[in-house]
Amino acid sequence: MPKIETIEPERSPTYTLAIAIEFLGTHYHGWQRQREVLGVQEALETAIGKVANESVEVIAAGRTDASVHASNMIAHFTTHAYRPTHNWLRGVNSLLPDDIALRWIQPMPADFHARFGAIARRYRYITLNQAQRPAILNHQVTHIYEPLDLAAMQKAAADIVGTHNFSSYRAAACQSNQPVRTVSHADLFAHGQFIVFDIQADGFLHHMVRNLMGTLYAIGRHELEPADFLNILSKEDRTIAPPTASGDGLYFINAYYPEHFQRLLPQAPLTPIWLNLPD
Amino acid sequence: MPKIETIEPERSPTYTLAIAIEFLGTHYHGWQRQREVLGVQEALETAIGKVANESVEVIAAGRTDASVHASNMIAHFTTHAYRPTHNWLRGVNSLLPDDIALRWIQPMPADFHARFGAIARRYRYITLNQAQRPAILNHQVTHIYEPLDLAAMQKAAADIVGTHNFSSYRAAACQSNQPVRTVSHADLFAHGQFIVFDIQADGFLHHMVRNLMGTLYAIGRHELEPADFLNILSKEDRTIAPPTASGDGLYFINAYYPEHFQRLLPQAPLTPIWLNLPD
Repeated sequence: MPKIETIEPERSPTYTLAIAIEFLGTHYHGWQRQREVLGVQEALETAIGKVANESVEVIAAGRTDASVHASNMIAHFTTHAYRPTHNWLRGVNSLLPDDIALRWIQPMPADFHARFGAIARRYRYITLNQAQRPAILNHQVTHIYEPLDLAAMQKAAADIVGTHNFSSYRAAACQSNQPVRTVSHADLFAHGQFIVFDIQADGFLHHMVRNLMGTLYAIGRHELEPADFLNILSKEDRTIAPPTASGDGLYFINAYYPEHFQRLLPQAPLTPIWLNLPD
Repeated sequence: MPKIETIEPERSPTYTLAIAIEFLGTHYHGWQRQREVLGVQEALETAIGKVANESVEVIAAGRTDASVHASNMIAHFTTHAYRPTHNWLRGVNSLLPDDIALRWIQPMPADFHARFGAIARRYRYITLNQAQRPAILNHQVTHIYEPLDLAAMQKAAADIVGTHNFSSYRAAACQSNQPVRTVSHADLFAHGQFIVFDIQADGFLHHMVRNLMGTLYAIGRHELEPADFLNILSKEDRTIAPPTASGDGLYFINAYYPEHFQRLLPQAPLTPIWLNLPD
């Protein structure tokens, strides 16, 4: 019997692949590669590069700071290598460090760009509000031992929604060329002993979520009034706002794209999985 | 005006204090101090010793293995030092490493003994059952990627309850002088993508929960039938049972004492706090 030859389908020279990444940021100096210190991006590029058998550049929707986590970071890369989806997933996950994992991988049109194409980003900031500090979750939440006034914080959070000049909540090192951002939602709610701050905007300035959280804590402790959030905002002066909250409690949970891209992206639970919160 | 002298109350020479401890076991070689490697016990004795200004011995209800965690380990120590409760708590927690914390401290009658006085111990074993491995919880759950048959595992778990010779589920290194234990409950339930195995017994043999879990996994994968749990038990032979499950997913969650002691002990949530499960 003659041997049946399998015919390779014709393929474009490069493939664009979207990925969702979960990572514990504790042992990384943020997303971006930096001289001498390991970033999440570099760890991913090393693992993906081995499976692709060529070097790749991984571009994420957001660039997180040191110690900040992601339950669902959206990113993309382009490569000449063709691999079936499950081979990518198994291969890359077997090569990544224990604290970084791909959740899915999805072939996308060539014009998909995880950073420049994103129309919104979403973060959740998790506070553990109880007298004793946590041990098991010691780098996975921010611990506040004084009881926080949830209602006061909720009042202030509602004022964050809208288009504002966020200069008062922007790190001095921020490289963005303008400080105006549009926040589409900013919800704050209790979940057991946790307080969850869920915020979505077209984009975020450097330290913006952590600076907003620092002011919400001051309001929750009655050091400031709920109305002070807008007072501080209107001053456009970082030096008058309370200190930046820790990176430990911050999670990048999703990025959103125009509908023709969005409907192609698989959906996975957005929250840090242990909280089992609705998306 | 004459200076009013405060009169020190008469005090017994030693105090017995019960404590509840939360710890992440990942970076410890189990509860007990061992030559050259750090145990949770040693870390606690160092911190408590500094606050007491004398050396102390901390005795726990259970001695966990390397990598096993506790959300609520009950222990006790005796000391000549008198400190107000909140000074103990603040002082010891400020000296402990980040991955160990006291949840409460409670003065007890002199005849309270956390180990010999305990009438029951309780563990929870947390499995994350989904295709992709976790990153954020990488050492805090055991990941099983094949879908497990929950109903089959529940059928087997029900058979664990009762008084049995657990030789088939006992580590070769076990130092207990007899292998019979009475299991008062063994519940298995799903919680989102998690499978929680909750087991309480008068005591546990070395590796007993992890060995039972290894057999439950084999049943959940249809490598064994639910009835095989009892078949293996009746053989009283460790070599015929499936392998020991990882320590990553195991949590010591409580110990119980006779009523005159039990009612003095504060109650804190038992579960790994992030799961927000009922106690």
